[in-house]
Amino acid sequence: MGWAEYFVRRGHAVYLPDQSSRARSGFDATTINQVRLGKKPPEKLPAIFTFGREAAWDLFRFGPQYPEPFADQQFPIEALGEFGNQVIPDLNATLPTPNPTYANLADLARSAGGAVLVGHSESGFFPEQAALADSSNVLGVVSIEGQCPPPTDAQLASLAKIPTLIVFGDHLGDSKISGPLWTKALADCKAFVRRLKAAGGTALLAELPKFGFKGNTHMLMQDRNNLEVADWMLDWIRDNALRRTAKRAVGKNRSGD
Amino acid sequence: MGWAEYFVRRGHAVYLPDQSSRARSGFDATTINQVRLGKKPPEKLPAIFTFGREAAWDLFRFGPQYPEPFADQQFPIEALGEFGNQVIPDLNATLPTPNPTYANLADLARSAGGAVLVGHSESGFFPEQAALADSSNVLGVVSIEGQCPPPTDAQLASLAKIPTLIVFGDHLGDSKISGPLWTKALADCKAFVRRLKAAGGTALLAELPKFGFKGNTHMLMQDRNNLEVADWMLDWIRDNALRRTAKRAVGKNRSGD
Repeated sequence: MGWAEYFVRRGHAVYLPDQSSRARSGFDATTINQVRLGKKPPEKLPAIFTFGREAAWDLFRFGPQYPEPFADQQFPIEALGEFGNQVIPDLNATLPTPNPTYANLADLARSAGGAVLVGHSESGFFPEQAALADSSNVLGVVSIEGQCPPPTDAQLASLAKIPTLIVFGDHLGDSKISGPLWTKALADCKAFVRRLKAAGGTALLAELPKFGFKGNTHMLMQDRNNLEVADWMLDWIRDNALRRTAKRAVGKNRSGD
Repeated sequence: MGWAEYFVRRGHAVYLPDQSSRARSGFDATTINQVRLGKKPPEKLPAIFTFGREAAWDLFRFGPQYPEPFADQQFPIEALGEFGNQVIPDLNATLPTPNPTYANLADLARSAGGAVLVGHSESGFFPEQAALADSSNVLGVVSIEGQCPPPTDAQLASLAKIPTLIVFGDHLGDSKISGPLWTKALADCKAFVRRLKAAGGTALLAELPKFGFKGNTHMLMQDRNNLEVADWMLDWIRDNALRRTAKRAVGKNRSGD
């Protein structure tokens, strides 16, 4: 069972939006059609990112190098073909700046009447970006296996008001090509969490092995122990982000609002 | 409420797959990247179909021409902006022949243990195409506002075994540019249904105005009376397609299978 269904079964309303330019959110095909018609040169085409199984194996830390798995890794390798079917081309190069997904996520939180935003990988820091666009309905942010670009001091002061959970799996430095990328992401996120705490924020940088979860890959929501990780994460969300909602609801009742 | 949710509330399991090359099913970006890198000429780029509100207004029969609505039309014009947000580029030009969606739909029917397949517009005849690929788990087909390319006699004999509902909305000949397109689609589908019936099939060509539903557009599942149309359609499915399943289930019980 995937997390979207499992979160619902645990009693949470779940929205699974596709980021701008991706899947059901569509993308702007204008430039591609203009190049086809000779109205723009080929070098104006967006660079469309995608990957095959060998690159995924290293980048997502199924093992040190394709096709060798880590002895304790949790991804169901027998499902690698089905996993490949889920890969869709990345058209972010067609997007304007800032990425419209940030404000759209904040809007979704508003229309839901408050939400905990969860991002993964490329979208790992989107919850924080959404909160920087409009934090008023962001009850908490969870960034899984993403990057943590350093915010300005003013941005940090705003983010420190939002309970923040940063999650990484196992073997961060152990894949042959991508090891340094993950080691840097971890270091940057550790620095981000230190700054949040120094500003009085509720923040946790969780390396899953230190919480008893061994062998988790980049795709930890699809790993064999995905529901155990989900339970642990939902507990953190309940204790650190949703209690804040409960307090707000009490306050609302008292004021008769 | 949309049909996917409403069908569930009426007690049916619902799967809403994205066709190959579209949305969460992804597409093959190889050619676009090759042209960008100078390895193929620009004219090899796929023609990506999309449309704006003026073209949609005519093609989807919100009125005779933009921005004039039919007096009795049912589409919530005030939501035209949100409707536009749902438009995603059509990358079918990147697909091989035959369209992989046909066999994938048949596979979905199999993995669901039997299904009624419903298609709309471009995918209107996909249910029939899926049944031609593998009819063994197709309990019925519903083609809404699509085209009916004439099957061969052998294909027709196969399709005549499957309960078939073809649905069209109102004002088929009344939009200024697209009128002839819809008039031809209706005529082709009438001929198709006549052939199914002549071969002993259960088939209905339903022009909604003749069933009491006036003013429905091409987007009839989003029209104001969408749930009334859904109820009527589900009744037809229950009476003509699902009773066949019930009989099969009884047969199964009798044989102890």
